[in-house]
Amino acid sequence: MTELIYEHPLNEKLRTYLRLEYLLAQLHSLNDLDSEWQQQAFFNALFDLVEVLDRNDIRPDLIKDCERCETALVAWANHPSVSGDKLKPVLQKAVRLQTELLRSGKFVGNLKEDKFLSPLRQRFSIPGGTCYFDVPQLHYWFNLPLEQRQQMAASWCHEFGLLLEAISFVLGFSREKGHFTAVVADNGFYQSNTDQHELLRIRYPIDAGVYPTVSGNKYRYAIRFMQLCDDAGRSNSDQSIGFELACC
Amino acid sequence: MTELIYEHPLNEKLRTYLRLEYLLAQLHSLNDLDSEWQQQAFFNALFDLVEVLDRNDIRPDLIKDCERCETALVAWANHPSVSGDKLKPVLQKAVRLQTELLRSGKFVGNLKEDKFLSPLRQRFSIPGGTCYFDVPQLHYWFNLPLEQRQQMAASWCHEFGLLLEAISFVLGFSREKGHFTAVVADNGFYQSNTDQHELLRIRYPIDAGVYPTVSGNKYRYAIRFMQLCDDAGRSNSDQSIGFELACC
Repeated sequence: MTELIYEHPLNEKLRTYLRLEYLLAQLHSLNDLDSEWQQQAFFNALFDLVEVLDRNDIRPDLIKDCERCETALVAWANHPSVSGDKLKPVLQKAVRLQTELLRSGKFVGNLKEDKFLSPLRQRFSIPGGTCYFDVPQLHYWFNLPLEQRQQMAASWCHEFGLLLEAISFVLGFSREKGHFTAVVADNGFYQSNTDQHELLRIRYPIDAGVYPTVSGNKYRYAIRFMQLCDDAGRSNSDQSIGFELACC
Repeated sequence: MTELIYEHPLNEKLRTYLRLEYLLAQLHSLNDLDSEWQQQAFFNALFDLVEVLDRNDIRPDLIKDCERCETALVAWANHPSVSGDKLKPVLQKAVRLQTELLRSGKFVGNLKEDKFLSPLRQRFSIPGGTCYFDVPQLHYWFNLPLEQRQQMAASWCHEFGLLLEAISFVLGFSREKGHFTAVVADNGFYQSNTDQHELLRIRYPIDAGVYPTVSGNKYRYAIRFMQLCDDAGRSNSDQSIGFELACC
């Protein structure tokens, strides 16, 4: 049985974290620049990242969250059943990340002013606007030696190194806070209180032919399972669906 | 020596034709839906196509151009040194395409109202807006059996069948009108009259480290060769550059 994990952020901060994690994963899986289309997708992901980072200053949030991780780790370290040796490197990482985040400037770094990237970025925001005659420099670039292109791509990706490490650390910590428990959605519907949780993780079997959608606010959330209809539209499922839920 | 062909449209109609040809090629090379990112790129190309077709009604232009091809073919057929047998199937195609184009509705067909696609399309126009929690139905869809997804993708691509055939026919005809001749751009610069040409084709060696950019209007055009600088900015090249030019 194939199972999928669907994660839903319950506040704007987590929404941005997950979005950045997703775009960074996309960027890194595309940076071998295998084909022309992969290169297009690479630049799409790169410019989406710059756009999201430009709209959201997440550095203060990340610093606060690393601090929170540190506090939690210190509290655990004092617990008699916890081995201090295992916690130490994690604790050190939390401290190091805070220092580096405090020192670092904006995450987009030089990418926004890069002389090669910035004229391209404008074109990539227009639907279908990156045909070779719109961006002749890119058409030329696609045909440069692979090694040279990969080097440039690696240097752009490198700008996001600290961001990637901090996001992975903080999200990893968040995810570990929740444990999966089995629940049932009667008539495809389940609701509960948020209890200051920030992230819902839903593990469900894909074979049931349904997928979860979540709506919610600070206090309550509702999970509704939907199905794709034969005409590819979607409707609420009225089955009872067993799934696992972790509130983090 | 690696050579590149750079094509530049000299009017808005050709610009749209080339854009559509490019997006259709992208769509077809991605429709095996190999990885999650490839699927993202597939949907990007699909929605870009819908957007471009929605903004430009190119059906009347395509019909007129097929008619023009037919007229040219009929004139050639009367030439004593031309074999009628070879022209016949091409002539038949020109006639058939006109009939089918006259009969067909809008090229986007049902895709704009498709119940699965239209909510996705909205999200794809937002930079970084297609994270799995933005489009849970797509996250679910990515995990359906490959065959089922390929079938759906093929049926969407199928909507563009006539468009692809007509665009290829008309552009193929345009491209054959011009023949490459060797010219030199002194100080990286070349200019001439358009003479009612619609499309410039520039064949240049990539090893020269420069790429062409074209500007022009109905009457004149200028080709300027540019180079990428060490800081990845670009500047005019002042070399004399030999290249081949076909005006179609």
